[in-house]
Amino acid sequence: MMPDTLPVYPSLHPSLSTSSGDFIQIRSHTESICSPLAIEDHVVQPAPFISPPKWHLAHTSWFFDRFLLEPAGQGVAPGDSYHLMFNSYYKSQGAHWRQADRGCLSRPTVSEVMSYRQQVTEKVTELIRSGRATDSQQRIIALGVQHEKQHQELLLMDIKYIFAFHPQPLVYDRHSIPSGIDLSMPAHWVNFDEGLQQFGAPADHFAYDNERPRHPRWLCAFQLCSGLVTNEEYLRFIDDGAYRDPSLWLSDGWDWLQEQGTEHPLYWFRQEGAWQEYHAGGREDLALSLPVSHISYYEADAYARWAGARLPTEFELEHFLNNIPEPENSSRRGSHAFWKPGAAICPHPSRAADKYGNGLLWQWTQSPYTPFPGFTPEPGSVSEYNGKFMSGQYVLRGGCVATPEGHSRPSYRNFYRPLDRWAFTGIRLARDS
Amino acid sequence: MMPDTLPVYPSLHPSLSTSSGDFIQIRSHTESICSPLAIEDHVVQPAPFISPPKWHLAHTSWFFDRFLLEPAGQGVAPGDSYHLMFNSYYKSQGAHWRQADRGCLSRPTVSEVMSYRQQVTEKVTELIRSGRATDSQQRIIALGVQHEKQHQELLLMDIKYIFAFHPQPLVYDRHSIPSGIDLSMPAHWVNFDEGLQQFGAPADHFAYDNERPRHPRWLCAFQLCSGLVTNEEYLRFIDDGAYRDPSLWLSDGWDWLQEQGTEHPLYWFRQEGAWQEYHAGGREDLALSLPVSHISYYEADAYARWAGARLPTEFELEHFLNNIPEPENSSRRGSHAFWKPGAAICPHPSRAADKYGNGLLWQWTQSPYTPFPGFTPEPGSVSEYNGKFMSGQYVLRGGCVATPEGHSRPSYRNFYRPLDRWAFTGIRLARDS
Amino acid sequence: MMPDTLPVYPSLHPSLSTSSGDFIQIRSHTESICSPLAIEDHVVQPAPFISPPKWHLAHTSWFFDRFLLEPAGQGVAPGDSYHLMFNSYYKSQGAHWRQADRGCLSRPTVSEVMSYRQQVTEKVTELIRSGRATDSQQRIIALGVQHEKQHQELLLMDIKYIFAFHPQPLVYDRHSIPSGIDLSMPAHWVNFDEGLQQFGAPADHFAYDNERPRHPRWLCAFQLCSGLVTNEEYLRFIDDGAYRDPSLWLSDGWDWLQEQGTEHPLYWFRQEGAWQEYHAGGREDLALSLPVSHISYYEADAYARWAGARLPTEFELEHFLNNIPEPENSSRRGSHAFWKPGAAICPHPSRAADKYGNGLLWQWTQSPYTPFPGFTPEPGSVSEYNGKFMSGQYVLRGGCVATPEGHSRPSYRNFYRPLDRWAFTGIRLARDS
Amino acid sequence: MMPDTLPVYPSLHPSLSTSSGDFIQIRSHTESICSPLAIEDHVVQPAPFISPPKWHLAHTSWFFDRFLLEPAGQGVAPGDSYHLMFNSYYKSQGAHWRQADRGCLSRPTVSEVMSYRQQVTEKVTELIRSGRATDSQQRIIALGVQHEKQHQELLLMDIKYIFAFHPQPLVYDRHSIPSGIDLSMPAHWVNFDEGLQQFGAPADHFAYDNERPRHPRWLCAFQLCSGLVTNEEYLRFIDDGAYRDPSLWLSDGWDWLQEQGTEHPLYWFRQEGAWQEYHAGGREDLALSLPVSHISYYEADAYARWAGARLPTEFELEHFLNNIPEPENSSRRGSHAFWKPGAAICPHPSRAADKYGNGLLWQWTQSPYTPFPGFTPEPGSVSEYNGKFMSGQYVLRGGCVATPEGHSRPSYRNFYRPLDRWAFTGIRLARDS
Repeated sequence: MMPDTLPVYPSLHPSLSTSSGDFIQIRSHTESICSPLAIEDHVVQPAPFISPPKWHLAHTSWFFDRFLLEPAGQGVAPGDSYHLMFNSYYKSQGAHWRQADRGCLSRPTVSEVMSYRQQVTEKVTELIRSGRATDSQQRIIALGVQHEKQHQELLLMDIKYIFAFHPQPLVYDRHSIPSGIDLSMPAHWVNFDEGLQQFGAPADHFAYDNERPRHPRWLCAFQLCSGLVTNEEYLRFIDDGAYRDPSLWLSDGWDWLQEQGTEHPLYWFRQEGAWQEYHAGGREDLALSLPVSHISYYEADAYARWAGARLPTEFELEHFLNNIPEPENSSRRGSHAFWKPGAAICPHPSRAADKYGNGLLWQWTQSPYTPFPGFTPEPGSVSEYNGKFMSGQYVLRGGCVATPEGHSRPSYRNFYRPLDRWAFTGIRLARDS
Repeated sequence: MMPDTLPVYPSLHPSLSTSSGDFIQIRSHTESICSPLAIEDHVVQPAPFISPPKWHLAHTSWFFDRFLLEPAGQGVAPGDSYHLMFNSYYKSQGAHWRQADRGCLSRPTVSEVMSYRQQVTEKVTELIRSGRATDSQQRIIALGVQHEKQHQELLLMDIKYIFAFHPQPLVYDRHSIPSGIDLSMPAHWVNFDEGLQQFGAPADHFAYDNERPRHPRWLCAFQLCSGLVTNEEYLRFIDDGAYRDPSLWLSDGWDWLQEQGTEHPLYWFRQEGAWQEYHAGGREDLALSLPVSHISYYEADAYARWAGARLPTEFELEHFLNNIPEPENSSRRGSHAFWKPGAAICPHPSRAADKYGNGLLWQWTQSPYTPFPGFTPEPGSVSEYNGKFMSGQYVLRGGCVATPEGHSRPSYRNFYRPLDRWAFTGIRLARDS
Repeated sequence: MMPDTLPVYPSLHPSLSTSSGDFIQIRSHTESICSPLAIEDHVVQPAPFISPPKWHLAHTSWFFDRFLLEPAGQGVAPGDSYHLMFNSYYKSQGAHWRQADRGCLSRPTVSEVMSYRQQVTEKVTELIRSGRATDSQQRIIALGVQHEKQHQELLLMDIKYIFAFHPQPLVYDRHSIPSGIDLSMPAHWVNFDEGLQQFGAPADHFAYDNERPRHPRWLCAFQLCSGLVTNEEYLRFIDDGAYRDPSLWLSDGWDWLQEQGTEHPLYWFRQEGAWQEYHAGGREDLALSLPVSHISYYEADAYARWAGARLPTEFELEHFLNNIPEPENSSRRGSHAFWKPGAAICPHPSRAADKYGNGLLWQWTQSPYTPFPGFTPEPGSVSEYNGKFMSGQYVLRGGCVATPEGHSRPSYRNFYRPLDRWAFTGIRLARDS
Repeated sequence: MMPDTLPVYPSLHPSLSTSSGDFIQIRSHTESICSPLAIEDHVVQPAPFISPPKWHLAHTSWFFDRFLLEPAGQGVAPGDSYHLMFNSYYKSQGAHWRQADRGCLSRPTVSEVMSYRQQVTEKVTELIRSGRATDSQQRIIALGVQHEKQHQELLLMDIKYIFAFHPQPLVYDRHSIPSGIDLSMPAHWVNFDEGLQQFGAPADHFAYDNERPRHPRWLCAFQLCSGLVTNEEYLRFIDDGAYRDPSLWLSDGWDWLQEQGTEHPLYWFRQEGAWQEYHAGGREDLALSLPVSHISYYEADAYARWAGARLPTEFELEHFLNNIPEPENSSRRGSHAFWKPGAAICPHPSRAADKYGNGLLWQWTQSPYTPFPGFTPEPGSVSEYNGKFMSGQYVLRGGCVATPEGHSRPSYRNFYRPLDRWAFTGIRLARDS
């Protein structure tokens, strides 16, 4: 995902269609994510990579307005300034407001944005119900729905950041305190043999174009750790002086450390000698058994080196996700059974996904984000710039607690810059067999 | 005034006291300035030197809370974070939030801030009415009132900036369109003789410590222009290529020009070849007869050089304000008669002050902001850092349309950095006799 | 290669040894590269990524001094400051001078540096001749020789930059004017079938650790262009407005363009409407038939997109270099026959390498610089940080006219940041079959 | 003085003329300042405000070449690039090389620059000897001589910086170790009465235009300390925690401190717990009785506040220099007797000037650098930009050990930015009577 939204558009299966009920539910879910917010919380942008929640609410509406309603002569944006303000980065759609300045936009108000949302939702619902949507329009609708789901996760990321760094850390959901999570399976190495494997999305599933085409790759034999790295393990890394030892870090990572003065994960705070971690319910004592989260690629990579291991490639993880071994103490079956069940208005890695921790935190891979062999960008206006983020970023796999239901799959390629930490990121170790 | 507030505390006359009625009126006036704003408008900070209106509302309350109520055991701030957030720059009062990050503070909400204001207003009113306020407390109250008036002007400056640079320029007051202003007196040079003169505030008036002590200075003979430079005149300066001619500029000014790419006053916009100016009612065609406003010291200085004149010193202007000649076509009398009468919720140089333009726009002087001989900072906790802004800034004199009633006087020294343009600044030319 | 040197140390074949004659020749060649320079030319650093030639001369000596002579009690550095100044980035070797400040070091003088070189050369030669060098010492010597060769290329890169951007462009070698180059073979697509192939250095050759281990990969079928992109072709790209069309660029690349205002390759200059290019003999009219050089990854990638093609992966190029087809009009044979024959004190892409242009310019690949599966850093003190540059960079393959003889091979992985342009870089197009 | 030189040209007395002997001596003295330097030392620029010594040697020749010889058809510059490289900041003379990039210019070589100097010296000497120099030419020559003297001081400042911050601090003059300085007169306050005084240069002396016109000012009664602040006193200021106490600093000064992490004067170094100071002979133990030097305006101002005093105005110092009281233990007489006698190739405050320390170090004043009333820039091409540095700087008075003989006078106004520390600056305290 990209800070400022993040298309990576799907190659829609021609028969794919969205029901009006699903559409309304998705739109409504976005709004419900913002329901605990005060009006003022919708406006602020405490870092250039954060977008004000209000902006997400408007941008996800603009997407349908610009790419679906306007071409059909049904556009509802009150004036050109909406295109300026709520276009994220589509150069083909004209000038767009600088991302780092989104927090300067006091207007439209939250109420005006909600009204804009309402109009867009109604017009699109009408079109769906009419049964007259063309194939191409159905594709745009399906794409817009996926796009909106990505922003649902971004909203949770951005709200967490806004709330956590307020001088008086705010509470998003007092009941989200970690509980019921069972990560008790002792970690062990899981073996995978070498061989030629297929990667990427199969033809009969929805997928973004960056997951395609499906193609073969040779995997050398490897091992993955059955669990994610925990806070307890990460604390040992810190206590061992790792943040002051250049031999553990990539050169760029070490420079980043020196410049930022970073000494711990993003949401850790020291309180009178003890570690606390911010989550949706406020700051709490660090839960040692939970997986470490909100770390940069540089930190994940340094941890792996310190631990005598390495990060997996994106293909090793995809292969794992496609061939998840059945834990002895589990009765789940099937390759998709491990995705967490419910909706996740819970910006904290607290809800179990599978016994291996998949679905809890996005897992950094050592694979830079590059095109698959034979990659072709999605045709048409919405996807004009499909591959343009394929430099300077790393792929993450596996989904997280903030990922909307149904928005994860083994071939899903999330991506961030190696210094980004506000996504729900974690570490799974790998090593050569 | 300083971007982030601006003490410059008064040496209060011992007998000075504030009535509860005046106090309530001042507090209420601050709130009325914000009444045309949406909640969202209170939160944003489109430039580091701007403060969100919400912050002004809270800070002016914190001032009374911290310096008056708390020492009396009557503090109302709900927790330490208020001291962190709403302390502007008083190092003696502990750590303070970085000015450039005020726009990140979504909380307290506007409603919570208004409630905080209300509590402070009530507690202070109570103290005044009790008749038990000590001399020292009365001094703090009087100081807090002056402080709040300064923020009333800053609020208008900041709101103007927030509204003007929104992609869809907002309207603050549709009825503030320039009208009724009579600047028709033809400009001429007014002569002043050389001689030893007294400068600074007399002992029996309220004044800040930077206006004191009253002291003598020798003035060489000089001339001042009877009018402020107009938009029409300034347009000739632009059309003459002045923004591209380094010989007209101070070296620092030229560097600033190159870096910023500035080509016109702050609130001018080109619209299809014609000039428009933003004011409280929106963008309008440039009114040629109005004084040019919102220009930096560098621009004022370059204009003066281009015009074959110079900027006045602060003492030349003070002498002028103290000895205002009676225009032939005016019946006003008295040295203070030229200050504009009413309150000014009108962030546009549209309301006549005197026939010489005093009270319309702050006039840049060539005098850097330095201490008067014998300067002594105000004693006590509120005034700990009195002179700390006396470097890198220039003095402005004369008041402006956004200056609250009763907050101007001939000895009043406003001050800004030479590159600042969001204050209501203008140009009066001077020359040697 | 990294700006500030660039280890990537070899896994030395145990039997590898360096003769004293070879050693002396290599050391002397480095000095001969600097022979056209004035003393003053050795000192300057016109950009942070450039090193003054004097620094290269000293650093390549320090390498032997620190890692070979000192441990043997034979160190010759006159004081600790040499370790501070001439350590490039080996954190294990203590503090090092900031790279961007190398141009501040007026001392030691060139003459003192040459004397330091001389002492190092003599001591090492003595050790070689004594026949008493241990295996481990022989490995260091061999590594130091490879290291010095890398700096020979860097010296030519840096000198070219220093000379080209002097207000009066300097001449390095008046006789280096392009001539005799035969690139007349018409470009065509060369086909390669899919299949499992071996990559990386074979065990019986010298290679750096980043070329190892040798391992299998699956290649999908692909095509490579038989020639490098020419100046003439690149000029069409420019004339087509490509530098102003965001749809052709990676997002990071477009940001880089906007920030830098780049509009052409690094060493192109406009002279009265005509294009000139700087090379070792000064500025000359652009030679249309020569391959375009000194372009960034972003430019190479944008060109490929504009041309309807893509950049090759590093494995496609390695496979090509290992299986170079015999051109019809050539009698060369053998997979290594295409490397250019002589030494190259010639910082200009003017000397033919093979009919396919290999050896003329490093070819950007779409492969980020990452570890091979099973990668293990070279053991021991010299190679402590072997993989630390494996982020944020792209691999280049094929060698260039400035690469010293014997310092190229099909598995050789050069690497630069996507914005770097001062290496001798070019473009070979690829596409899917 | 400005980093990049800074004329501030004189109003030459019409009868002023320069003898060929004086001219040759001045030119030769500049070269002798550089005689201890290696060629490499002439080239480097370790900070943007430093100029490489080679540049000074060339620029002071270019000044005569461009403004005297060229107009007479006798120019000697070999090509236009000399005008580009050696013009400091005269916009009227066309584009000039960026000051911060002077250290990138390896050519012309030192030898070529010396040859350029030689040609200029010869041509100008010839013109002087011919007796045919017009009045206007004589003025340029006299101005060029003053200009060159300013650069002699700048050369010593820049060389000191280059040598001091080399990792192995270099020795400029091993025999310059402080000795023979008698500052033993106990410091006391010297009283001055209020009254109207004349300031600025008298008509019959050489002076720059910024010292003119002579004009009256009213001085309030004041006191000056008879001695400069010593290292011992300054050490008490440091040991008292002054660098960590915001209440002592101007707001800008405190920001500068935080940003720079400054904790002591520029050339102080801690060596195993003890203070050392760099001077021309290398680093030595801090001499407690010497005046503190190389401090910024911010530090001088903070020291004065800490000491319960203030800095003097430039007029208080001028008045002092014009009415120097005769110390009881001195037999010197006359207002100019206190200027140090000999030449000063001695970049260290070690040589006595007068019993009050005048002539040892430039004394920071609290006066921003502004025009005198009636200021008129010198007419003609050389003085086109006379007043353009009159913003953002403070005036210093009194001369220093590096000031060439005959280049100081009571009305001389030196000026630097408040953060500059590489000039030979010191502190004299003042207070109100």
